[in-house]
Amino acid sequence: MPEFVYGLWPIMETLRAERRTFEKLVLADHLEEKGLVGEIINVAKEKNIDINRVQRRILDDLGGSNHQGMVLRVGPYPYVDIEDILQVSAKRGEKPFILLLDLLKDPQNVGSLMRVADAVGIHGIIMQERRAVSVTPSVVASSSGAVEHLHVAQVTNLVNAMRDLKNNDVWLVGMDVGPNIPPLDKTDLNLSLGMVMGSEGEGLRRLVRDTCDLLVSLPMRGQVGSLNVATAGSIALYSAWQARGWQGWAHA
Amino acid sequence: MPEFVYGLWPIMETLRAERRTFEKLVLADHLEEKGLVGEIINVAKEKNIDINRVQRRILDDLGGSNHQGMVLRVGPYPYVDIEDILQVSAKRGEKPFILLLDLLKDPQNVGSLMRVADAVGIHGIIMQERRAVSVTPSVVASSSGAVEHLHVAQVTNLVNAMRDLKNNDVWLVGMDVGPNIPPLDKTDLNLSLGMVMGSEGEGLRRLVRDTCDLLVSLPMRGQVGSLNVATAGSIALYSAWQARGWQGWAHA
Repeated sequence: MPEFVYGLWPIMETLRAERRTFEKLVLADHLEEKGLVGEIINVAKEKNIDINRVQRRILDDLGGSNHQGMVLRVGPYPYVDIEDILQVSAKRGEKPFILLLDLLKDPQNVGSLMRVADAVGIHGIIMQERRAVSVTPSVVASSSGAVEHLHVAQVTNLVNAMRDLKNNDVWLVGMDVGPNIPPLDKTDLNLSLGMVMGSEGEGLRRLVRDTCDLLVSLPMRGQVGSLNVATAGSIALYSAWQARGWQGWAHA
Repeated sequence: MPEFVYGLWPIMETLRAERRTFEKLVLADHLEEKGLVGEIINVAKEKNIDINRVQRRILDDLGGSNHQGMVLRVGPYPYVDIEDILQVSAKRGEKPFILLLDLLKDPQNVGSLMRVADAVGIHGIIMQERRAVSVTPSVVASSSGAVEHLHVAQVTNLVNAMRDLKNNDVWLVGMDVGPNIPPLDKTDLNLSLGMVMGSEGEGLRRLVRDTCDLLVSLPMRGQVGSLNVATAGSIALYSAWQARGWQGWAHA
């Protein structure tokens, strides 16, 4: 099944990452070939991708309301295996740094988290195939294309994947809420790490929570008393990367 | 000018905060009075607020597409002065912890930041009146109503406000990007603090940057190389609160 990646940066990153098959670049008829639009067209020409001009309303059908005048028809997202993710760690000579998502439903949250996962150098992301969001074009868009550079494994059963990771000496740290759960700075996160985030509203499923080696929480003192999972997850990922001394950062 | 706060949690928090005048609660004709809807109606009755039922399409006109069947007609947002914000710090017996926004434009980003500001116990937020977003109903909605509990000052000139804060011994720390700017964990943020965030795309204006006492950056190592201001700001606010030892957290 072809997919339609939409939006200028998401398309640019998809082309740069070169991990999908590229079928066709479709542009709104009056779109001017300057700035980022011009750059994308040049890259597409270098890669011998067909370029078509169509009426804008056809793009509205293909790419929703946020296509910015352009969609890229591509092959499916290139999922990887858990083994591939562990190889990324080995190849970089770093302790595993993996993100696990437990049944997240909102593409915007998942996309936001992916963008931060890219920023902190996550080696891979593991999510369940059923009852959860997959890497759709809207996740690609919400991640500003970052997910095209990331290694994402889609598994049948998240708990089995967690056990696999444990057998590979990865520590699983779940984000949870509750008065008896220590704040995330009280645990040394500089370890072979799988960070596990629960879904919007529901949090971690019981069996997922029970399979974690440790739980950490994000302190809160306000009136409203909850944070969006993408916000909480972003803070946790940065906290973990900070514990690693900003490993891999050009200026570290 | 009356405003129309929309969405269930934003309305509930507006009622709980009790800082606006309440004119009327307007419900979609078929909305069932159960769960959070029922609770809001009870609170409105206790406060003797008029309750009206109207056709759903009238709500669409008043509250956009995300009203969830309810809008609350209210008086204007209760802005405060810088002096009031400093009094919040004094009253709590805490060193000032203030957020300054330099010309942010996107209500969703500002709302997200407000929600985090509430979670970390920010004493107040300062933003410029012109060329920036103000506390509109869509900011209230994006903050899940958190902004109704916060102290927000709208100033004519942000740089003048910064000088005012300096005269009150507040240190101004700007979030910036660049190779020569130290990462935010290399600066002790446990001080009388005004965190300054630049706008989407543009960052800090030159004079605002020059008026800061210190600059800090957020490390990044990925392919995409930038983060949304709400994400970056959330991480910075948590970092600053962590430096304060989670002051004010019930479990600290």
